[in-house]
Amino acid sequence: MTKQREPSGEDKLIERFFKPLAQHPGALALSDDAAYLTPPAGHDLVLTTDMTVAGVHFFPDDPPETIGRKALRVNLSDLAAKGAEPIGALLAISFAEDFDEGWVANFSRGLGEDCVAFACPLLGGDTTKTPGPLSISISAIGKVPSGKMVKRVGAKAGDLVVVSGTIGDAALALEMKRRILSGGLGDLNKPQVAELMRRYRIPEPRVALASTLREFANAAMDVSDGLVGDLAKLARVSGASAKIETAKIPLSNPAHDAIAGEAALLEVALTGGDDYEVLCAVTESRFGAFAEAAGKAGVPVTAIGRFEAGEGISVLGAEGQELSFEKASFSHF
Amino acid sequence: MTKQREPSGEDKLIERFFKPLAQHPGALALSDDAAYLTPPAGHDLVLTTDMTVAGVHFFPDDPPETIGRKALRVNLSDLAAKGAEPIGALLAISFAEDFDEGWVANFSRGLGEDCVAFACPLLGGDTTKTPGPLSISISAIGKVPSGKMVKRVGAKAGDLVVVSGTIGDAALALEMKRRILSGGLGDLNKPQVAELMRRYRIPEPRVALASTLREFANAAMDVSDGLVGDLAKLARVSGASAKIETAKIPLSNPAHDAIAGEAALLEVALTGGDDYEVLCAVTESRFGAFAEAAGKAGVPVTAIGRFEAGEGISVLGAEGQELSFEKASFSHF
Repeated sequence: MTKQREPSGEDKLIERFFKPLAQHPGALALSDDAAYLTPPAGHDLVLTTDMTVAGVHFFPDDPPETIGRKALRVNLSDLAAKGAEPIGALLAISFAEDFDEGWVANFSRGLGEDCVAFACPLLGGDTTKTPGPLSISISAIGKVPSGKMVKRVGAKAGDLVVVSGTIGDAALALEMKRRILSGGLGDLNKPQVAELMRRYRIPEPRVALASTLREFANAAMDVSDGLVGDLAKLARVSGASAKIETAKIPLSNPAHDAIAGEAALLEVALTGGDDYEVLCAVTESRFGAFAEAAGKAGVPVTAIGRFEAGEGISVLGAEGQELSFEKASFSHF
Repeated sequence: MTKQREPSGEDKLIERFFKPLAQHPGALALSDDAAYLTPPAGHDLVLTTDMTVAGVHFFPDDPPETIGRKALRVNLSDLAAKGAEPIGALLAISFAEDFDEGWVANFSRGLGEDCVAFACPLLGGDTTKTPGPLSISISAIGKVPSGKMVKRVGAKAGDLVVVSGTIGDAALALEMKRRILSGGLGDLNKPQVAELMRRYRIPEPRVALASTLREFANAAMDVSDGLVGDLAKLARVSGASAKIETAKIPLSNPAHDAIAGEAALLEVALTGGDDYEVLCAVTESRFGAFAEAAGKAGVPVTAIGRFEAGEGISVLGAEGQELSFEKASFSHF
């Protein structure tokens, strides 16, 4: 007999930290090579994937439970913007050489809490090691009634430009963190920075808004790379232009105070990304009903401008002047 | 107007190199946040994910077209072993800082050829950068008739242990590469090493065997971490033991010659992994029909032993003596 009767270290890690998250029956308690999924009748599946890398998408010293939650939430945000409710997720993770079990325990605890909170159990996964930074790739599977996925394409001239929640918090958090690290805090006191940083670490995927978007949104996406650039993408694929007014853009209190104290931070807020709010096009006459339904779902929505014929994006300042930004959105390349 | 009318570098990269791979209608030409998939009636979906990392799962200087092909093929191998035919795949890729477009062009060309060859178009993806090594995470989606996924559990005492293709080629390739790098080639001449290395770089997922496995296999998995260890996993989850005979294990000519010249290489071949062949349990009386059907599908299969009551794995040498290995399979942890 050789030693193969004992599970390997990899199998033990999966058994201990990830099997508890695999509550979907098709996950087979992570004891198989693959999961099965009996598709819900009358539905399409919606599929998305995002990779998050330490030092790129999160800080290596972020609390591990928030890293796990964010990795899942950025995917759930994509599903929500498409009008899809989560079914489950696949997790592929490359641990850095210096990983320790305590870290994995906290990571999987945070991830597991969100798997429960958002009804998105783990379906399967892959664990490996990397000589580089920790990398987490999650693929999320959701469902919509057949043919009802909300697409990016579909905004029409005259539609209102609508966003959920508040814009710019995460980008401002990064800017403040940069300043704190370099010794200058700026005009924000520390509790305000903490509030912004919480929004960076734990975005709020608007899963609660999914069915309302299916009913009211002519087009939608989530804001991940910056409001202005993402709006440009939605307008471009829809064959429209858009004009938004900065005075209407919903800001959290810390974001409002930061920008009031330093006007240049407006550009950070509108182009920095990591918002994970919904951006959508809504027929003007239906906006009232949309806002009411969204409110019932617990998600505030705000009209910030209008789609028009033509192409390009105009961002109007407080006096109606057209603003120009260095770059519209974040790009890795 | 701000600069947002122009697609970002990231969008251009996707447009140029990955959009041509996204032939599935639900991929929306990669112009959306997510893909939709109308599930085939009367089928379950089968889901799997694997992450491959430069320097861990492939050599950074491997031809980029083989890196793309292998990243997909290891997932297709999981699907095939579950009796599933591919539907599509999601690709999340972190490029290292020094990536260049020529590399991406060759990578996506290789991947794209296999997307066509295995009828597995790209459904969606995510591109990012990493300060670490290139990392590729693919999630593959397949289909089986409802309830027909072939599981790891299900081997019964008396069933034959069956493998497809040949075993040990990739692990021997790695061993030979190690020796070449350290200056000693061993007993293999170079064309033989090249043949083994080809098997390491471009494994052959047994997609052609999927429907035959659904008909004949009581349990199955793919051999990725080494035959002995993977057989132990299958036996353990099935509540059985297994006994295999090394004399019956199918070897390629280069693998045969390598082991004939140096008996210690047998352990490398049987425990090294990266085979991506199917390991399955087949009722003895049905093996003839299974082998015939597999042969018609173009996949050779070989019975190498038998499942028995009890637990553990026995590997019998040429004289019937029980062999003992240092470790049964590859583990990252």
